[in-house]
Amino acid sequence: MLKPPEHQVAGHRAQDGQLGPLVDGCGIFYKPLQGDGRGDAEVAFYTSLFSHPAVPPHILSFFPGFHGTLVLPASDASGPRPHLALDDLLAGLRSPSLVDLKIGGRTWPPDCPEDYFQKCIVKDRESTSVALGFRVSGVQIQDPAGTDAFWRPSRAAVRRYMVEDVRRVLRQFVSANPPSPDQKPDCALASAVYGGTDGVLAQLMKLKAWFEEQALFHFYSASVLLVYEKDAAVAAAGQQAGKSSGVRVKLVDFAHVMEGQGVIDHNFLGGLCSLIKFMSDVLNDP
Amino acid sequence: MLKPPEHQVAGHRAQDGQLGPLVDGCGIFYKPLQGDGRGDAEVAFYTSLFSHPAVPPHILSFFPGFHGTLVLPASDASGPRPHLALDDLLAGLRSPSLVDLKIGGRTWPPDCPEDYFQKCIVKDRESTSVALGFRVSGVQIQDPAGTDAFWRPSRAAVRRYMVEDVRRVLRQFVSANPPSPDQKPDCALASAVYGGTDGVLAQLMKLKAWFEEQALFHFYSASVLLVYEKDAAVAAAGQQAGKSSGVRVKLVDFAHVMEGQGVIDHNFLGGLCSLIKFMSDVLNDP
Repeated sequence: MLKPPEHQVAGHRAQDGQLGPLVDGCGIFYKPLQGDGRGDAEVAFYTSLFSHPAVPPHILSFFPGFHGTLVLPASDASGPRPHLALDDLLAGLRSPSLVDLKIGGRTWPPDCPEDYFQKCIVKDRESTSVALGFRVSGVQIQDPAGTDAFWRPSRAAVRRYMVEDVRRVLRQFVSANPPSPDQKPDCALASAVYGGTDGVLAQLMKLKAWFEEQALFHFYSASVLLVYEKDAAVAAAGQQAGKSSGVRVKLVDFAHVMEGQGVIDHNFLGGLCSLIKFMSDVLNDP
Repeated sequence: MLKPPEHQVAGHRAQDGQLGPLVDGCGIFYKPLQGDGRGDAEVAFYTSLFSHPAVPPHILSFFPGFHGTLVLPASDASGPRPHLALDDLLAGLRSPSLVDLKIGGRTWPPDCPEDYFQKCIVKDRESTSVALGFRVSGVQIQDPAGTDAFWRPSRAAVRRYMVEDVRRVLRQFVSANPPSPDQKPDCALASAVYGGTDGVLAQLMKLKAWFEEQALFHFYSASVLLVYEKDAAVAAAGQQAGKSSGVRVKLVDFAHVMEGQGVIDHNFLGGLCSLIKFMSDVLNDP
């Protein structure tokens, strides 16, 4: 029984007859291939990534598992269409809080068509990408009161985020008090989610070390996805000796990955370092 | 007795009645203030940098010493004009080899006027800045035969450099054989100049550590300047236990420095990491 994912904060959505991803409820996420070459590019990337001898296993674990492609009825009723079969990164989670962060001050590759460059540079300048090296593509935070409700700003609101909004959202993401114009985020879960030996910061540092060296792939318009469940984080925050919050740190969206040609991805790396600094600031001044 | 610097590979030159920098032969470099606000911006940066309590002393040593401003007759005979008084970074060197590397995939600040953005983005895309995170602004290499001659490509040639040209120049810069289309650079001086405990790579790593943390300044259109003398490098290369080649690693050109406003300079940092990777490649595969 395929259906649209319950929790999705960015990208095309399979609802109201639109084309979008589907999940099977058993751990697989089916992403329809875009017809303009982007879908093929993403398949080629996954194939190359998982067969490349120079990519270490601890780096592969940052990517969704790849299970090939499968022709399925598309969610927009346009008929059969090939889909990427990937691990469902939210499998097993009832009420995930998640944030999608598009990394890089620049979302366009060096040798792209002029119309694509123009489209991207406008968005990069209007959003926080240029100033900050990354932007929020979407976010949902579980209601701190423990209900099944989520705080999820509209796409239009997220698109208008300035640097201070991003700072606030990254604090709100690990707070136990509800978002409010009158109250600062308390960052009660910061050390459980961002800190610790397997928290977000430690995982991003591993990714950074790889990006300082790897000259295989350049990731344009790709995102870091952070996912955790409040219950597990609250339990971890209550422990003395750093119980894991189970936070998941994944890279997603590879329709615009290019070959590195012996040069590091300085654009992604710079944005990643900026994100790391933002999270360190939350941890050091909660 | 003020005169134009003997060795200058980038920037405006005080020759043929043009406005440019002057040196006094006693260790001071006088840089005329541009009238359009850029000069004032550079003075403000130097003043702020050398008075800021959060900038550590080992980082200040990457910058030319600053001795205030002085009104001097301009080199274009336009009359008296304020000049920045800075340390002459080539003082005491008879035959310096030098390369000026403009750092950052982007040379324009986020909130710049549209015409400045358009001018910069064209240059960034046409040069290696976008692809590589830095570009060569100028280079001169002492004739390996030991004469007083230099190999210095024209500005037009440097402007046309693609990624492979930059790679070749960074190898040629530390080679003992002359530049030639038929012969690869031998990289004989790579370990003396790029390697070692006070070589270029070690110094750039210190700079990188600062850029991962500092959110005070964003350096647009600034350069890393590398300077060494072949004699000292050859002597160092002949030693067993890493004698210093005396290479100088400096940051220059701060007319477009902006306040960081709590965000790291991900653009400069990314380019710096790319340069570090290029130099590591030369060291690991000379």
